Amino acid sequence: MTTIALYGYGEVAKGVELAACASPDVRIFGVFTRRAPSLVQTRTGVPVYGVNRLFELPEGALDVVVLCAASPDLAEICPNVAARFCTVDGNDMHAALPAYLQRVDEACKAHKTTAFVAGGWDPGLFSLARLFGEAFLPDGKTYTFWGSGVSQGHTAALKRVKGVKDGVQYTVPKPSALDALRRGETPDWRAQDLHERECYVVAEEGVNEREIEREIAAAPYFQGYRTKIVFVDGEELREKHAARGHGGRVIRVGRTAERAQNFECSLALSSNPGFTGSALLACARATQRLHAEQQYGAKTIFDVPPVYFASKPRERLVEELL
Amino acid sequence: MTTIALYGYGEVAKGVELAACASPDVRIFGVFTRRAPSLVQTRTGVPVYGVNRLFELPEGALDVVVLCAASPDLAEICPNVAARFCTVDGNDMHAALPAYLQRVDEACKAHKTTAFVAGGWDPGLFSLARLFGEAFLPDGKTYTFWGSGVSQGHTAALKRVKGVKDGVQYTVPKPSALDALRRGETPDWRAQDLHERECYVVAEEGVNEREIEREIAAAPYFQGYRTKIVFVDGEELREKHAARGHGGRVIRVGRTAERAQNFECSLALSSNPGFTGSALLACARATQRLHAEQQYGAKTIFDVPPVYFASKPRERLVEELL
Repeated sequence: MTTIALYGYGEVAKGVELAACASPDVRIFGVFTRRAPSLVQTRTGVPVYGVNRLFELPEGALDVVVLCAASPDLAEICPNVAARFCTVDGNDMHAALPAYLQRVDEACKAHKTTAFVAGGWDPGLFSLARLFGEAFLPDGKTYTFWGSGVSQGHTAALKRVKGVKDGVQYTVPKPSALDALRRGETPDWRAQDLHERECYVVAEEGVNEREIEREIAAAPYFQGYRTKIVFVDGEELREKHAARGHGGRVIRVGRTAERAQNFECSLALSSNPGFTGSALLACARATQRLHAEQQYGAKTIFDVPPVYFASKPRERLVEELL
Repeated sequence: MTTIALYGYGEVAKGVELAACASPDVRIFGVFTRRAPSLVQTRTGVPVYGVNRLFELPEGALDVVVLCAASPDLAEICPNVAARFCTVDGNDMHAALPAYLQRVDEACKAHKTTAFVAGGWDPGLFSLARLFGEAFLPDGKTYTFWGSGVSQGHTAALKRVKGVKDGVQYTVPKPSALDALRRGETPDWRAQDLHERECYVVAEEGVNEREIEREIAAAPYFQGYRTKIVFVDGEELREKHAARGHGGRVIRVGRTAERAQNFECSLALSSNPGFTGSALLACARATQRLHAEQQYGAKTIFDVPPVYFASKPRERLVEELL
């Protein structure tokens, strides 16, 4: 049995909550929020506490705290929580991960806890695909595609453009780039060569659409990208562009002795936070086991034997899945 | 530096040899063969010895012996070699793996060696995809496709059919099955529902082609499968059907809270033994590290932290690939 707590209660936390309810070996102790607890209503009736209460709990009350705060806040939150409890997070700020990992590692080792850092799909499952792509096919190049899916950062930038009343921005892999890699080509492509952007825009009344197009083209977030702009009305935006599916693809274009060897790993998610929540729960299971074996410190998906993520015993995994 | 030896010198061993030549941190001590050494000519001039010489080598002469014998022979070979040296193999007899793993584990633990069992792509990379598919998306079903590629077993069965002079059998995933899974359907399909077979056949002179078709349909290897039969002449078979590409695909059709979540992992290999050899070399690197940490016993890809397979240090993996 694994007893978890949720730190924060956004979409990913709801994903963890629903995944935990479907897992007979997991119990949720409660949600710990920085908001007023009375304002938070959980989906499945899990009790809600103020975040300070977390630090008053006796040792052993919890196995793992799943940190569902926004990634920029984790640098402060995680070392604090890891000083008392094992943690799991889905920190997705790739460039900041080395420093973050070191800070969390120090907190864990000082307090004999285990923190699983950067779980989910990217970083997470896609990181693993990149590692095995390189290890099994050292001669080659790896490309990561995101989408088709809504980029939160670009959608916010789109909404800040003058004349834009509302909008949604999709990051879309270029079919021509995918085709080239599958043919075995290994160009020096960056993210903007692999993706294009699609903006669905509700214009403010009386604003010239060509003017909005020029503003978007000039916005720093969109520079260097081929960007398609479609004007829609508010009703169409709400009806057709409210879903938050996402996904992506890691491609290793490799060679052995001049023969093409391609490896692909892809996700097509109709609920991004639903998948991330479910993945973080598996990471919580792994974290509890690492801690039970006194493997203290900050761990990533690169550091953990895969058996630790599964709910079945190793013998059954060998029989059924090897 | 990793010093390896090759046990056997078939196509996979040649793949390991070429991969090792491209790896500055690997040295090949030699090839050990059950044939007369003078009859074996290696591709890169690696010295060849009789297999008995392997057991006369002093301790420490080798880090890992990569066993490139046929899978049915490994049950005898591996425990013998593992009593003296660390080993790696690509045993692909799925059903026999639990018993094999236990026998090898006993040999290793008695002699303080480490054996990496069942490396390659399936079992191997695809096993990992099945494990993570299930761990991250517990509500769902996993399907494994092989091909398009030549099945050695079915090709041999085809050649035994009366009236068949020569032939090649491809296992081909059914596009309609792929489409159904990608739509989120989770039928109870077995291998024959996912694949069809394509036979390219050179008929013996004067034999009726309809008769051969009936014979193939009645052969146990082909029962239950939709089988396409194409008659060709010997020249076309040699020219168009000599390549030994292969590949496949693992699909997890999952759900979280009734939302479709699909994970796919695929390989398109223009040289099956080339990929397997390159993968086994990465497994040899992992095995040497496990042994250096006194992790004795039989290990699978499920048991080993992914960092162990990479040639880069963990810090660089975190920076570049996480």
